[in-house]
Amino acid sequence: MRIHLQNPDNDPLFDFSRSMWDAAAARAPDIGAGHDVSLGVTPAGFRAGMRDAEALVCDASVIKALFPCPAPHLKLIFLTNAGLDRLAPFDWLPAGVILMNNRGTHAAKSGEFAIMSILMLANRIPTMVTNQRHGVWRKLWGSVLSGRNLTVIGLGTLGGATAKHAALFGMRVTGIRANPAPHPACETVLGIDALDDLLPQTEFLVLACPLTGATRGLITRQRLESLPSGAGVVNIGRGELIDQNALCDLLDNCHLSGAVLDVFTPEPIPPRHRLWSTPNLIVSPHTSADDPATYNPHSLDIFLDNLRAWAEGRPLPNRFDLVRGY
Amino acid sequence: MRIHLQNPDNDPLFDFSRSMWDAAAARAPDIGAGHDVSLGVTPAGFRAGMRDAEALVCDASVIKALFPCPAPHLKLIFLTNAGLDRLAPFDWLPAGVILMNNRGTHAAKSGEFAIMSILMLANRIPTMVTNQRHGVWRKLWGSVLSGRNLTVIGLGTLGGATAKHAALFGMRVTGIRANPAPHPACETVLGIDALDDLLPQTEFLVLACPLTGATRGLITRQRLESLPSGAGVVNIGRGELIDQNALCDLLDNCHLSGAVLDVFTPEPIPPRHRLWSTPNLIVSPHTSADDPATYNPHSLDIFLDNLRAWAEGRPLPNRFDLVRGY
Repeated sequence: MRIHLQNPDNDPLFDFSRSMWDAAAARAPDIGAGHDVSLGVTPAGFRAGMRDAEALVCDASVIKALFPCPAPHLKLIFLTNAGLDRLAPFDWLPAGVILMNNRGTHAAKSGEFAIMSILMLANRIPTMVTNQRHGVWRKLWGSVLSGRNLTVIGLGTLGGATAKHAALFGMRVTGIRANPAPHPACETVLGIDALDDLLPQTEFLVLACPLTGATRGLITRQRLESLPSGAGVVNIGRGELIDQNALCDLLDNCHLSGAVLDVFTPEPIPPRHRLWSTPNLIVSPHTSADDPATYNPHSLDIFLDNLRAWAEGRPLPNRFDLVRGY
Repeated sequence: MRIHLQNPDNDPLFDFSRSMWDAAAARAPDIGAGHDVSLGVTPAGFRAGMRDAEALVCDASVIKALFPCPAPHLKLIFLTNAGLDRLAPFDWLPAGVILMNNRGTHAAKSGEFAIMSILMLANRIPTMVTNQRHGVWRKLWGSVLSGRNLTVIGLGTLGGATAKHAALFGMRVTGIRANPAPHPACETVLGIDALDDLLPQTEFLVLACPLTGATRGLITRQRLESLPSGAGVVNIGRGELIDQNALCDLLDNCHLSGAVLDVFTPEPIPPRHRLWSTPNLIVSPHTSADDPATYNPHSLDIFLDNLRAWAEGRPLPNRFDLVRGY
């Protein structure tokens, strides 16, 4: 197949290289060999590649900057992002071209970030960091995770990995997802309509769902207020899932004991924004999901898995559903 | 047996109660029943209890404040602390009285604190917190733990629990202890004389050993400098194990990428001390090991285990070695 890999022009840490492709192809010899692969980084390189490419592998910033452009043979686009909300609506996608996202790549890194965040909340690290900022020594007693109630919204790659780690620490995990099918790491899986009944028993709330029309603004002020006093919140989904101002208010008045956030509205957080100084809040700069050492190799493995399915006429595991938005 | 439980007069969160004793006795019916148990909180209550007590259960602050005092029938002292360094030398201990510490109680909480700290270092949280303090949004990429090199100094309750969690995350764990016997969670266990060869390959260093004559000042400036650039340090042992100023210098100059410390010299950290503002350093106020919800019940379980051994004429599992100092 004629495959074009396009690197963004501003983030060399996450660039694809020829040797990275060769290594991925060697890991999947049944499907990796015999392709005609080009690598671009400039807009001219992109346009040249698109003239005869059948498959494009790139990230969302490339699509935003350079697409649409003439691509008469294009059949597949594989994006190295998992959440594609900032590419919606998808009217830029040429008719007949299949879009894939990169779900799966983020499991290991996101899962570790999420369980770290839950442990930080259980150990009162956000408050310790606030006290440290003010030079205050005050004993703060945390607790172990075993038996504590965790609610994870979204059980895809991120939420599933979160639930798995949490179950290993003995937490009681309840998952919330659109289709409430059982999940091996969850005691209970419920539909989104059960959320209001669940929040008053939720000691730790992790947001790990995609941003869609159905999830935008899901965690309202009222829902945050219905969490028990001392609860903690983790957001590794998207900033727009939650009423961010209400979250800050409830940290200010100590209804919530802490929050660890990797995503915000807007990003980057502007200078002097209240998020920088809200007490008991830890700011991670939207880097929870990505490990530069493993990200691109793993992304190419997933792309080749999909190419195998394509060659065999099976449904593509990473096909993006334009209507659901994930 | 005539048993006296003495609560310190300044920390009601960790007080023993009659119902706590009754519950522990019910959990161990073979050894828990039939004792004559008194509970004291004032100095007068302590002296009254000591008149006929055969066993004393209390913490180190009670010993410091109220001991020695007449205790003609005393045979056993069970302290609810694990590290007894601040009670050395042990010349206050009456001849013939056996001293026990509380090793074992801290495994669950300390192990979770330690793996949280390692995850925080791998995810660059100390640097994120420093950036947040200055209102700076800067992407910082972390990495997963699998395959990374962890060195744990001390493989007792704390270090053993640390190694166990780390192994579950796929880390390559090397343990250091006085007697380098194998440990199930460690790929390798070495004696302290191997430390200098090991440090240049150590990406994460966890100090989890007791403070003794042999370990005081163990982690010198030179040893910290021999860690690879970007290494991270966790201390859940004692502040005096490490050259604290050298640690701050190496965080200041970014040789080390971060540190999570629960113990310091001195404690509390004085106002305006450099520890409060050293970059990429997280201060936890010596609370990593203790979970108020489970601490005393678990301590009483361990005390009763030792009482069973005493009744059966076996060696006491928690007997404190006055010469080794742990």
